[in-house]
Amino acid sequence: MAAQRRIDLVLDSVKRLLRIGATANLLNLLQKQHPADLAQILGELADKDREVAFSLLADRNGRLAMETISELGPEKGAALLATRSAEEIAKLAQEIESDDAAALIDYLPEDLSAAVLDLMRPRESGVVENLLEYDEQTAGRIMNPSVFALNEDMTVGEAITEIQNNRDVEMVFYLYVVDDRKHLVGVVSLRRLLLVSPETPLKRIMTADLISARVDMDQEEVARQVAAYNLLAIPVVDEENKLVGIITVDDVIDVIKDEATEDIYRLAGVAGDDRAFTPATESFRKRLPWLGINLMTAFLATIVVAIFEPTIDQLAAVAIFMPVVAGMGGNAGTQTLTVIVRGIALGELTWSNSRKALMKEAAVGLGNGVVLGIIAALVAWVWRGNMTLGLVLGAAMIINMFVAATAGTLVPLGLRAANVDPALASSVFITTLTDIAGFFAYLGLATIFIQRLAGL
Amino acid sequence: MAAQRRIDLVLDSVKRLLRIGATANLLNLLQKQHPADLAQILGELADKDREVAFSLLADRNGRLAMETISELGPEKGAALLATRSAEEIAKLAQEIESDDAAALIDYLPEDLSAAVLDLMRPRESGVVENLLEYDEQTAGRIMNPSVFALNEDMTVGEAITEIQNNRDVEMVFYLYVVDDRKHLVGVVSLRRLLLVSPETPLKRIMTADLISARVDMDQEEVARQVAAYNLLAIPVVDEENKLVGIITVDDVIDVIKDEATEDIYRLAGVAGDDRAFTPATESFRKRLPWLGINLMTAFLATIVVAIFEPTIDQLAAVAIFMPVVAGMGGNAGTQTLTVIVRGIALGELTWSNSRKALMKEAAVGLGNGVVLGIIAALVAWVWRGNMTLGLVLGAAMIINMFVAATAGTLVPLGLRAANVDPALASSVFITTLTDIAGFFAYLGLATIFIQRLAGL
Repeated sequence: MAAQRRIDLVLDSVKRLLRIGATANLLNLLQKQHPADLAQILGELADKDREVAFSLLADRNGRLAMETISELGPEKGAALLATRSAEEIAKLAQEIESDDAAALIDYLPEDLSAAVLDLMRPRESGVVENLLEYDEQTAGRIMNPSVFALNEDMTVGEAITEIQNNRDVEMVFYLYVVDDRKHLVGVVSLRRLLLVSPETPLKRIMTADLISARVDMDQEEVARQVAAYNLLAIPVVDEENKLVGIITVDDVIDVIKDEATEDIYRLAGVAGDDRAFTPATESFRKRLPWLGINLMTAFLATIVVAIFEPTIDQLAAVAIFMPVVAGMGGNAGTQTLTVIVRGIALGELTWSNSRKALMKEAAVGLGNGVVLGIIAALVAWVWRGNMTLGLVLGAAMIINMFVAATAGTLVPLGLRAANVDPALASSVFITTLTDIAGFFAYLGLATIFIQRLAGL
Repeated sequence: MAAQRRIDLVLDSVKRLLRIGATANLLNLLQKQHPADLAQILGELADKDREVAFSLLADRNGRLAMETISELGPEKGAALLATRSAEEIAKLAQEIESDDAAALIDYLPEDLSAAVLDLMRPRESGVVENLLEYDEQTAGRIMNPSVFALNEDMTVGEAITEIQNNRDVEMVFYLYVVDDRKHLVGVVSLRRLLLVSPETPLKRIMTADLISARVDMDQEEVARQVAAYNLLAIPVVDEENKLVGIITVDDVIDVIKDEATEDIYRLAGVAGDDRAFTPATESFRKRLPWLGINLMTAFLATIVVAIFEPTIDQLAAVAIFMPVVAGMGGNAGTQTLTVIVRGIALGELTWSNSRKALMKEAAVGLGNGVVLGIIAALVAWVWRGNMTLGLVLGAAMIINMFVAATAGTLVPLGLRAANVDPALASSVFITTLTDIAGFFAYLGLATIFIQRLAGL
């Protein structure tokens, strides 16, 4: 909280200095901030102010400016960069790690990104271009290709000298060991080097049994490995087991957050990059298709109601409780769906135990259906003075909540078996199904017992 | 994927060895696994098998058994431990870090946990009891109190000797520096020690401006700090700035995952500890209250419909499109709600920019309402041959989707202002509101234009 208060204070000062145009003071204040804090501050400024502050910083302190927009995320960062010339961007891009540069350049307009890659120093742009060749959301795309490695024939003393000669390589805590042909053969911690004599060969103290990620491994799987084995970093190897990069735990945290957002979003039918401050026209365009699908499925439910129109025509009171049956099925289905989708995402649910999950959810759905169906039946009976109406409503709710729980388990498991993200399309399936099953059960039972409902 | 296949193979072997009772072979196989893999394997066994495998391991390799159940999570872990005597548990608990032990003991039945604390060696149980005194979900509760610290008056050479003398302290990559009274005064990386001569005083090379967490800081805030500043660990201090513990990034990853699950769950009205394999009776009990609230709100919507019963009585066809209006409002509201709740959780949405978010969501809701309202109006007109019906349906949808977007923004922001988790109660508010507003707009307009709808 204290940190947040400090940032709010700085934000106020930044706004004031921008208003009075005190650029020297502003620059001075900005340069004292951590890139992560600066990113938050820039994020809260109005669009025009953000551009002014970023320009000022980019001209005077390119490294800090670039570290800041890396923290802002590639999409927003690229938007800030896009107003500058290709020459300036190429120069600025060299201030940061090539994986961060690649992510930013990937979000620039196409002709601009091509021009920037042309202008960057050949070695640098080669590295960035290589990264952009890996598929999105793979280890190759998010790795940092500049990884510090030691040769297996070195002694501990030589290794320490090597570390001393490479002062500018970032964050060395795991030292990866490679053979003459760059194949990854082991790992040793920096601390371990301090505990043995300088003549010890690295081979003798390294751990040969280490966990690595292939360049084409899905980033979600990479995150799972790092989290499961409590790693600070994971080495990335190509198909021949040659060391090509490293993914550190801070990048893994970003992946975990993004994947969680993706799951939350998909359950609600929102695109992953549709955030609170995505322009309205873009959000509109992104949400329309899913709502369109929902409109089609809503009309499907409507057809079921239309089948029973004569019943409603005879007894308008029947229509009153339609929303209760459909709504409760939808809610129960969403609960089950959420537990199952998250269970799959966290790796708790596999094929071998899915039967057990199904039995459990069916039992829970039935249990809740019976309890709430009885309550609803009593309310309807007392309110409208007709016991049959209560029984029809209660029975329909029990049927629908059982259907909801079963479908809420089977639909995500089925999608996963078909290699579709279970979160992606489940909720629209479930609500459509519970609407249709609910209306069918409720209006169907009402039609059967129409004689006993007469006089409502 | 390869790792998953390997685990599946081991799981099959474990099941086979359990079936034929080959305990020696089984123990041998289990001991070759990483605790994280073992946790997954145990998690997928039937309850009885899991207990057998865990007992076997606990008797022969207490440390591995305890590391495994730490990975399983405190709730499941405590369930496995609870079948053993207090003496055995006290002995086993000393095999793991005291923060992990505290989490496990906290989940044991109350009399058992008291007995265990009594039996643990005084020093150990004191540490565990101290941890249990901090509030849940605070830095104090999740920190590891055994933190390696160096005195500020040491030289680099003395520091290295100190590290060599403390071989069993875990994961030292940041070396925290304290004064004589244990106040945290700086930090130095292990690597930095290698780059300077042994006579250098620590004071000269340490970073004095470091980020720390107070014991009472919320764990979510701790996670945000570690993620924002890309830290591998964060030191924990008491109110006098004395160093009392350390939280490493692997614990932060668990917090981030738990908080994401909590958000996903709360949006769907599911309790945080209701997982795929929580016993059915427990899940039933946990989901019933939320469904009960939903039932009450569903009856609220029913009252609105009942007000317009005479209209439905005159024209049953009007009832057919009720689900479309309510459903589309609910879907649009859920989309907005999800974006806003996640925006708050990720720290993108603050008070100062909430007006901007509201204007945007209102525009998106109106835009989607107009497009989909026109489509629905055309479908209804063509299907039932009555233009007024189409206009009433379309207008009601536009009104309801605008209400949904506005409420989807204001309700979570309002809950947050009242210091309630925005994810907690938002969805039930939103769906109730969109049901009521939808039925009111649709049936109200139908009642006004009842003359023009006649003959449907």
